[in-house]
Amino acid sequence: MEPVPASNSRTVQTSLVLPPDTNHLGTIFGGKVLAYIDEVAAIAAMRHARNPVVTASIDSVDFLSPVKEGDIVNVEAFVSWTGRTSMEVYVKVMSEKGPGGDRRVTAISFVTMVAVGKDGKPVPVPKVLPETEEEKQLFESAPERQELRKKRKKR
Amino acid sequence: MEPVPASNSRTVQTSLVLPPDTNHLGTIFGGKVLAYIDEVAAIAAMRHARNPVVTASIDSVDFLSPVKEGDIVNVEAFVSWTGRTSMEVYVKVMSEKGPGGDRRVTAISFVTMVAVGKDGKPVPVPKVLPETEEEKQLFESAPERQELRKKRKKR
Amino acid sequence: MEPVPASNSRTVQTSLVLPPDTNHLGTIFGGKVLAYIDEVAAIAAMRHARNPVVTASIDSVDFLSPVKEGDIVNVEAFVSWTGRTSMEVYVKVMSEKGPGGDRRVTAISFVTMVAVGKDGKPVPVPKVLPETEEEKQLFESAPERQELRKKRKKR
Amino acid sequence: MEPVPASNSRTVQTSLVLPPDTNHLGTIFGGKVLAYIDEVAAIAAMRHARNPVVTASIDSVDFLSPVKEGDIVNVEAFVSWTGRTSMEVYVKVMSEKGPGGDRRVTAISFVTMVAVGKDGKPVPVPKVLPETEEEKQLFESAPERQELRKKRKKR
Amino acid sequence: MEPVPASNSRTVQTSLVLPPDTNHLGTIFGGKVLAYIDEVAAIAAMRHARNPVVTASIDSVDFLSPVKEGDIVNVEAFVSWTGRTSMEVYVKVMSEKGPGGDRRVTAISFVTMVAVGKDGKPVPVPKVLPETEEEKQLFESAPERQELRKKRKKR
Amino acid sequence: MEPVPASNSRTVQTSLVLPPDTNHLGTIFGGKVLAYIDEVAAIAAMRHARNPVVTASIDSVDFLSPVKEGDIVNVEAFVSWTGRTSMEVYVKVMSEKGPGGDRRVTAISFVTMVAVGKDGKPVPVPKVLPETEEEKQLFESAPERQELRKKRKKR
Ligand SMILES: CC(C)(COP(=O)(O)OP(=O)(O)OC[C@H]1O[C@@H](n2cnc3c(N)ncnc32)[C@H](O)[C@@H]1OP(=O)(O)O)[C@@H](O)C(=O)NCCC(=O)NCCS
Ligand SMILES: CC(C)(COP(=O)(O)OP(=O)(O)OC[C@H]1O[C@@H](n2cnc3c(N)ncnc32)[C@H](O)[C@@H]1OP(=O)(O)O)[C@@H](O)C(=O)NCCC(=O)NCCS
Ligand SMILES: CC(C)(COP(=O)(O)OP(=O)(O)OC[C@H]1O[C@@H](n2cnc3c(N)ncnc32)[C@H](O)[C@@H]1OP(=O)(O)O)[C@@H](O)C(=O)NCCC(=O)NCCS
Ligand SMILES: CC(C)(COP(=O)(O)OP(=O)(O)OC[C@H]1O[C@@H](n2cnc3c(N)ncnc32)[C@H](O)[C@@H]1OP(=O)(O)O)[C@@H](O)C(=O)NCCC(=O)NCCS
Repeated sequence: MEPVPASNSRTVQTSLVLPPDTNHLGTIFGGKVLAYIDEVAAIAAMRHARNPVVTASIDSVDFLSPVKEGDIVNVEAFVSWTGRTSMEVYVKVMSEKGPGGDRRVTAISFVTMVAVGKDGKPVPVPKVLPETEEEKQLFESAPERQELRKKRKKR
Repeated sequence: MEPVPASNSRTVQTSLVLPPDTNHLGTIFGGKVLAYIDEVAAIAAMRHARNPVVTASIDSVDFLSPVKEGDIVNVEAFVSWTGRTSMEVYVKVMSEKGPGGDRRVTAISFVTMVAVGKDGKPVPVPKVLPETEEEKQLFESAPERQELRKKRKKR
Repeated sequence: MEPVPASNSRTVQTSLVLPPDTNHLGTIFGGKVLAYIDEVAAIAAMRHARNPVVTASIDSVDFLSPVKEGDIVNVEAFVSWTGRTSMEVYVKVMSEKGPGGDRRVTAISFVTMVAVGKDGKPVPVPKVLPETEEEKQLFESAPERQELRKKRKKR
Repeated sequence: MEPVPASNSRTVQTSLVLPPDTNHLGTIFGGKVLAYIDEVAAIAAMRHARNPVVTASIDSVDFLSPVKEGDIVNVEAFVSWTGRTSMEVYVKVMSEKGPGGDRRVTAISFVTMVAVGKDGKPVPVPKVLPETEEEKQLFESAPERQELRKKRKKR
Repeated sequence: MEPVPASNSRTVQTSLVLPPDTNHLGTIFGGKVLAYIDEVAAIAAMRHARNPVVTASIDSVDFLSPVKEGDIVNVEAFVSWTGRTSMEVYVKVMSEKGPGGDRRVTAISFVTMVAVGKDGKPVPVPKVLPETEEEKQLFESAPERQELRKKRKKR
Repeated sequence: MEPVPASNSRTVQTSLVLPPDTNHLGTIFGGKVLAYIDEVAAIAAMRHARNPVVTASIDSVDFLSPVKEGDIVNVEAFVSWTGRTSMEVYVKVMSEKGPGGDRRVTAISFVTMVAVGKDGKPVPVPKVLPETEEEKQLFESAPERQELRKKRKKR
């Protein structure tokens, strides 16, 4: 399999924060942000692997600023590194305060997706080709993060 | 108010087609596609107007090809023309057949959004500055479409 | 196939406007109204065709008056004209302001539905028999609207 | 307050049974049918009372026949009797097997709704005027059902 | 089949009341509570029967106190009695007013679930073994309730 | 404030896995599991703090085994440790394969919730009193986890 440029899996999802996504103080649920992260990571991974994917793990997520009903949420993701059947997907969540307001980082996350065949068993994925500065840095620091994931799963 | 580049309102929303969006043959509902179009057009218009917006009208929409559960839907929109308080938003819906499959146009649409203040009354919006070839063509052909909308509403 | 009276496909759907259907100003989304229109048109067309249907197109829709959380929305539809495999469905959306309030027209729309077999291919539908004055007028003006749809799709 | 004809509160809601409404055998959940019954009863009661309403109780419901994904569900309701602040709403759920199939009764139910003011306290409702044979029969047998409700609540 | 202790089917579901579950006065819909009751009763019955189940009927439900957005709803259920293929499930709905507030009974209900095979036909279920005082009382009073259900269905 | 026993915040949520929660292979989305974890952790924290809460962070989550449509998901949580305004909530997700099937651990997670007042500002929470062996172990190992959270956020 030919290596695939990281840009090929870049996926953007912009949505409005609606009443069902928020608690009774009008703030978005952490669980809603996590569901956005997982959906966009899955699409990025499917685009890279050209196969269905399942979520193997999500690294820790810090919620840096609250998001309110009526705000705009912008989720961006791309495949930053690959193993044999697994892909590390980098996901960044930004929010715009009200119509046209300033952008702030809400959360950053690394999701590991595994490509699966029709029987649900892991299948190999193409390598990723980092091109921009950001893509290269994430690519190079990935094996260390992967080491930590293996250790934490054993515990 | 300074004119605002069309690129400023460009909005992308990529989603997975899930079971609740489809009929029992596994094909997405037209109504779901229309709901996507309206949401992404509203975000584009909010970004341009820096104010809340309401949907005034949607031009006719032809559904050119079916979209299936498990496909990826990609909706892109930007403000193509403005009146005093209204904005014409151009929306294009593409679908990718299965993981990593070919892209096809599903539907193209023009939505008219009106900026409103906190009292729900229309408020003025900045002019739009078309820059790319596509933006310029849509900008120039807009007044004619606007004429037709006025006529059809009178009937 | 025997012609089927238009009344046979008449379908009514009355619902309450709930928080998830509205923006943070409490006004219903245009996209929600469009999803209602598509669902009720599909049921009317299924009742006429006695087959599954897909949405081929929707004509332009003007949103004539805002609908608020807590209002009642009333959607009515019937098959107004048929081609070989396609049906023109006339849909009228009314809203009642708050409990027991006055009725107003929110939107009127023509949706074209195509009957399909299990393989998703178009299948013939019975002719429609208009009986009331409204049904007859819509039946007679339909071929002209159909002409316009064919022209606009070619563009 | 003038008595209001029962026909004034007649409410119809026709919907398609979609995947989220069904279990993994493709049959609609009883809970979904109960939610439909409550929504349509509430709209009928709001139309009669011209005030918001809350559900005080629902009489027993027998589910007489299964409803499948892709079937059409038709819920009809009207106010059959009134107390001082409470209304008995008669609700009938029919289903159509597949597109254009035969109609069967799925469930019949009596819901008691209470009209409330802005403070959530019960407020008086107009009397109901039964006109058809069905309306008259339900009106006459209502006080007996109401007696049973008072007894069962005490237990 | 060995009798199964009632405790084996005990099922608890605690949820937050969110905006989509409430009307525009911020009170939960009766239909939402009924949907919770049906879901938890179904899980309890599946755990007892080790088979899929369908809802045969629900006895009358009185809604004793309103539940607000932001409240916590606690639904508990267990199989209280069995016939050949049917199970009587006892369901109790409690609500906690706001964070950590007092608990109140919202509703109590008996749901009858029938175990079904892959073809949707009723299949036998194991007997239930009541152990606690509450379980024993409900077990002993069940045949009388079952008699009433058979009578009411005939009418 | 008196210390509050860990058992006081114990929260259980059992649900059925339904079509909208799963991908087109019938497996639950990781994002859905994360949304469950966040909701149940929030309820546990609200019960401990007797105040509204917001999600500050979630530690890494490994998804150990797939969960299918029709399976039962069981989420349990309790407050395992407290800071001044923050609470560490331990969450365990189990799944039962099909009706009455074997239980397996799907995921384990630590969520940090912060109690907030009506203005959204952090407010102090009572200390937690661990009683069982599991509660004591988690209580004692918590400060070390808290250290790691502080470090990772700085990066
Ligand atoms: C993810 C899953 C398929 C891995 O299965 P497995 O038996 O561990 O398979 P393998 O050991 O062959 O691992 C497959 C790949 O996943 C990686 N992986 C497994 N668990 C991981 C984790 N927690 N974090 C990161 N990577 C992980 C392995 O390192 C391996 O990567 P590689 O092929 O690139 O070297 C399996 O754990 C699973 O099905 N989990 C549930 C997935 C799911 O349904 N998620 C949604 C919510 S439950
Ligand atoms: C609608 C669809 C089946 C038509 O396919 P096609 O290859 O154009 O088929 P045909 O040329 O045989 O046309 C079938 C009928 O549809 C009509 N039709 C096609 N496009 C139409 C449009 N945009 N507006 C109105 N009618 C249209 C044709 O006039 C013809 O009518 P007739 O049989 O009554 O004379 C096809 O375009 C399709 O599958 N679109 C996607 C439908 C869908 O999934 N919608 C949901 C959201 S994407
Ligand atoms: C319904 C409710 C307002 C009744 O309050 P109450 O203190 O019993 O008030 P009242 O005694 O004045 O009763 C008001 C009317 O409701 C009727 N009523 C009360 N409980 C009833 C029941 N279970 N079934 C039928 N009617 C009932 C009374 O008979 C009385 O009728 P009338 O005015 O026509 O004579 C109250 O129980 C409540 O708020 N329940 C929750 C409603 C709700 O939020 N439901 C959604 C799901 S929780
Ligand atoms: C429930 C259902 C399977 C019963 O079918 P049936 O032909 O009456 O079958 P049986 O006469 O063999 O009855 C089976 C059991 O159900 C019980 N039952 C049937 N209707 C009942 C009712 N309304 N209330 C309580 N128990 C009932 C019978 O007493 C019998 O119990 P037992 O085996 O313990 O003695 C059938 O009515 C049905 O499919 N209903 C729709 C279920 C459904 O889909 N519900 C969701 C919303 S529509």
